[in-house]
Amino acid sequence: MSTVVSNIGLLVTNDGPERTAAALVLDHGRVVWVGDSAKAPAADERVDAGGRCVIPGFVDSHSHLVFAGDRADEFAARMAGRRYEAGGIRRTVAATRAATDAQLLATATRLVAEMRAQGTTTVEIKTGYGLTVDDEARSARLARTLTEEVTFLGAHIVPDGIERADYLDLVTGDMLDACAPYARWIDVFCDRGAFDESEARRILLAGRERGLGARMHGAQLAASGAVRLAVELDAASVDHCTFLEPHDVDALAGSDTVATLLPGVEFSTRSPYPDARRLIDAGVTVALASDCNPGSSFTSSLAFCIAVAVRDMGMTPAEALWSATAGGARALRRADVGHLAIGARADLVILDAPSYVHLAYRPGVPLVHRVLTAG
Amino acid sequence: MSTVVSNIGLLVTNDGPERTAAALVLDHGRVVWVGDSAKAPAADERVDAGGRCVIPGFVDSHSHLVFAGDRADEFAARMAGRRYEAGGIRRTVAATRAATDAQLLATATRLVAEMRAQGTTTVEIKTGYGLTVDDEARSARLARTLTEEVTFLGAHIVPDGIERADYLDLVTGDMLDACAPYARWIDVFCDRGAFDESEARRILLAGRERGLGARMHGAQLAASGAVRLAVELDAASVDHCTFLEPHDVDALAGSDTVATLLPGVEFSTRSPYPDARRLIDAGVTVALASDCNPGSSFTSSLAFCIAVAVRDMGMTPAEALWSATAGGARALRRADVGHLAIGARADLVILDAPSYVHLAYRPGVPLVHRVLTAG
Repeated sequence: MSTVVSNIGLLVTNDGPERTAAALVLDHGRVVWVGDSAKAPAADERVDAGGRCVIPGFVDSHSHLVFAGDRADEFAARMAGRRYEAGGIRRTVAATRAATDAQLLATATRLVAEMRAQGTTTVEIKTGYGLTVDDEARSARLARTLTEEVTFLGAHIVPDGIERADYLDLVTGDMLDACAPYARWIDVFCDRGAFDESEARRILLAGRERGLGARMHGAQLAASGAVRLAVELDAASVDHCTFLEPHDVDALAGSDTVATLLPGVEFSTRSPYPDARRLIDAGVTVALASDCNPGSSFTSSLAFCIAVAVRDMGMTPAEALWSATAGGARALRRADVGHLAIGARADLVILDAPSYVHLAYRPGVPLVHRVLTAG
Repeated sequence: MSTVVSNIGLLVTNDGPERTAAALVLDHGRVVWVGDSAKAPAADERVDAGGRCVIPGFVDSHSHLVFAGDRADEFAARMAGRRYEAGGIRRTVAATRAATDAQLLATATRLVAEMRAQGTTTVEIKTGYGLTVDDEARSARLARTLTEEVTFLGAHIVPDGIERADYLDLVTGDMLDACAPYARWIDVFCDRGAFDESEARRILLAGRERGLGARMHGAQLAASGAVRLAVELDAASVDHCTFLEPHDVDALAGSDTVATLLPGVEFSTRSPYPDARRLIDAGVTVALASDCNPGSSFTSSLAFCIAVAVRDMGMTPAEALWSATAGGARALRRADVGHLAIGARADLVILDAPSYVHLAYRPGVPLVHRVLTAG
């Protein structure tokens, strides 16, 4: 069945300049026509955008949705002055292991629906709160029922009760074997208190040998060699990038590795924001993602991330929108989402606003009028 | 008809400590019973809160909803480095004067509905974009169709085309006469580029003689005598309070004047945040409000304001919630809203969360499950 979305006040396709008085035709889950609303061909169904702004659906390339429990108490304590450390992850690991499959799936499903209602049409989901072979495998399996973009993150932290060397053998051996069938990506938290660069290299290379693409958490808590390692290994993305040295920026600029910024983390941990302006000016490809997780960033709203990125990270509204759509797609090495060129997936959002600028101009206000998806 | 809201996981009444496993009974638009869910009496209708958190409806004591046009372009320019100045108000004044009553009412009605959907059950609305006798009077009249809390803000700026002295005569004379029948409050923008203290005194005293309560915009752009004047005149609230001297804090602490903080303004103008912690520690009553307006703060979300207040203004989640409910009620000198004691208006929000902490812990995420109102 074909659908024409007509009377679009402002259309962002990420494929050429913004259009006014535009229309789109969708057929079999793809964009098949883009042009002036007055010239739009007929279709089986007609959606009148009423002069509103239409954008590509958000591509959230970084989330941790398979978990149990919440850490509202830890958040409140942090707001009262306690610093965020990666160790808080252990609480969620314990709760996740104790949960049933049904409980884990219910929470993840609810969060995906919450994201969808806020305009996110593609979401990556990481494992990383199981940290045993069985718990990681079920996390990957459950995530795979919700998205094609599953990331194996056994290397989130070294869990309690196992020697570091033994855990590294597991992550690069049996655990990887158990998760790889469900996953497209392998990730490692390469930072202070988590895994160092030589460990990260071993883990990502093991994943690559099993056909998984590399991505990395890096430079969230401190500067390190993580960013250069990500570039060296042609990781699709290195995520956080809060603490960057000049050579990190240079390395990213000369690479196909996206710098994925996660402003929800800095907001919710009261940390300094990454400097998106510096990255963009240097020629780095920047994505914005939610990092939705119960510890450091429990937002699922890419509109919120855009508002913060514009206020505090030096991005223009247009850059922030691009990074939350096309940038996220680059971070997942996907050509079919994040834009609305002919042939792209028919994933789009009709905003309850005349312009995408309102995503930053009206912070916190739900501005999704309607979400259309190919699926 | 009576309604029992049962199975409340966490209940905040602002009248005694938080309750768990609680219930409320509402009858004829009032709270008539509060207690344990297991002991709740029968009622005509039953609402199962499903273990969610219930809070009083937000009381947004500061908004400017009667206007036409938007200033998204000005917002984008400001994010690119231009400073906020009060003069931008003139653009909205021109657009508002050119609009029909129906256009103005449609926009204001839409924004009140948007607020309601986000949990705001009481809203104050100011005039201040008309600035002629007829345009202010119609702004007040239209606002009065949407709320009892109408504020006459002829003293927003001195409009173009009239001498300052003549405009002051108008605001304290014919314009006041035309607006007073619809208004409960008189307000003045007492700051750099707007009105000075002696002008503000004259305006507020004229309003008081017409039976209007005093409130004030003060200390948004610079420190001045505005706060002390507000206290001297027993204004219900002085709003913004970004730039305070120690004697301002002392004056507020010894008064019945509420300090209303508007974090949406600082967020959207990239200005320093007011120090709520300092005010609370000094014994000042603090309210949080949206200041929803198309220039300096186009958010309508008190949840967003709470999240920013917790992150950047030193408030605990509990304090921020109190300020956005009971604090707003104090700023409007209302005893019937902002709390859920027996006898209070049955204005409440069932959050889609187990705790109000999630309003800050999950920034940007729409967390309203259901809004119940007396009206």
